[in-house]
Amino acid sequence: MPRRLLLLLLLALSLVASASAVPAVIRMVPDDPTAASSGAVDDADSLFCDSWRLSVETANAGPWLAVPARCGDFVRDYMEGPRYASDSAVAAADALAFASDSLAAAAEWGGSASARPAWVFDVDETLLSNAPYYAVNGWGSLEFNETSFDEWADAAKAPTLPPSLNLYNQLQGLGFHIILLTGRIEFQRNATESNLLSAGYNSWEKLILRQPSDIGKTAVQYKSERRAAMEAEGFKILGNSGDQWSDLIGSPMATRSFKLPNPMYFIS
Amino acid sequence: MPRRLLLLLLLALSLVASASAVPAVIRMVPDDPTAASSGAVDDADSLFCDSWRLSVETANAGPWLAVPARCGDFVRDYMEGPRYASDSAVAAADALAFASDSLAAAAEWGGSASARPAWVFDVDETLLSNAPYYAVNGWGSLEFNETSFDEWADAAKAPTLPPSLNLYNQLQGLGFHIILLTGRIEFQRNATESNLLSAGYNSWEKLILRQPSDIGKTAVQYKSERRAAMEAEGFKILGNSGDQWSDLIGSPMATRSFKLPNPMYFIS
Repeated sequence: MPRRLLLLLLLALSLVASASAVPAVIRMVPDDPTAASSGAVDDADSLFCDSWRLSVETANAGPWLAVPARCGDFVRDYMEGPRYASDSAVAAADALAFASDSLAAAAEWGGSASARPAWVFDVDETLLSNAPYYAVNGWGSLEFNETSFDEWADAAKAPTLPPSLNLYNQLQGLGFHIILLTGRIEFQRNATESNLLSAGYNSWEKLILRQPSDIGKTAVQYKSERRAAMEAEGFKILGNSGDQWSDLIGSPMATRSFKLPNPMYFIS
Repeated sequence: MPRRLLLLLLLALSLVASASAVPAVIRMVPDDPTAASSGAVDDADSLFCDSWRLSVETANAGPWLAVPARCGDFVRDYMEGPRYASDSAVAAADALAFASDSLAAAAEWGGSASARPAWVFDVDETLLSNAPYYAVNGWGSLEFNETSFDEWADAAKAPTLPPSLNLYNQLQGLGFHIILLTGRIEFQRNATESNLLSAGYNSWEKLILRQPSDIGKTAVQYKSERRAAMEAEGFKILGNSGDQWSDLIGSPMATRSFKLPNPMYFIS
């Protein structure tokens, strides 16, 4: 091929690649969004899986057991590419914008004099990332294996989620009491503390794990009970960050809740 | 250009276009997600705006007045392209899957004998699409103009949202009582009814609009009060579909709520 035409080809390719994330040539919307269309299967899967991910993030999807088979590659690409990092960064930026405003508002109302402003964080996929575990376990497309996950958690090697670490440090600087509320079980306390410290989380007010009496409770029930106990102790829960809606809903709720992305698994 | 090379170019373009929706060349994640990066501005904007959209859909963003300036083109592409249609279709499919299950569950518990199963729908961006209005009014990047929007609503030409119409018909077939609860005002009743009918919505149990005493209330307050009244009348609100979180939250809530996509505007 003549060199000039090769350059033209590359230029054309780069123009397409740098255009909007969804090329305009993709125009198919199957009436049944769960049906694979004939031909151009990759495009239809990508379009469907992105909508599936939105339905998970908005809780429209309700309870689900595994990533749909056709979305396995999509979830891998999402988690390994820039989108997971970007979505996490925007969630943290939203939380930080609210945090400053909420402290100012609380001070204005005179609310901060009696109540201690608190921020609740979940741990897995909120402060720590288990992406390295899921990368070698099907990215959520396989049934959850408690044994192998517990081994991973026990190794205490989960990396930090950088936007969450930055938010965490900023909240501490603003004077928030940081309370960690995780579905992990009390026997995992040492590994969890060790992992949090090595991931850069230097201190916290409390780290709450499931006690024997909490086994069998849904996350909504267990976490709501603990938030009620925090309020009874005099904390005012202004913010709550978690990757599952079950971290955030139930009574009492934080003044504002922040949903971190997680297309890999669902906890009720 | 020789014809063979033109074909080769087109083939190469189609290969790129049929690859994953996010080209692998986009790899930048700015530390400050609100900062435009130097170079490849379109890619950075596209990545940021997609995360901004997610933060709107999950309510992380909180109240907002206008689409960020850098996301105007993104919102246009999203609304005009296949993604808005696909996201709407998956939200409707989620709702329908729950609807069948919920009726069966209600029958099993004996709950349906006394309470009438109901589904609440918002109107704008839920049953009817105002995209043609926003297409010539900046796609949400301009301040809301009540005068021109009221003129548009009065013309009663808003097209249907096809996945919502299909869901609506299926729910009626299942025996749900359909209640329409809109932030539109009583003087808009005739235009709204006329538009709903021409858009294919043939009947409903009630169409509730804001009364003079509701002016000034937030949508959350007004809509919660009306849901409470429905329950007092003997309706069991199993599902609720709306494009704003203010359609869905507040007390009482439906058993399950379904958030339809809307990156164009926010109502508190």
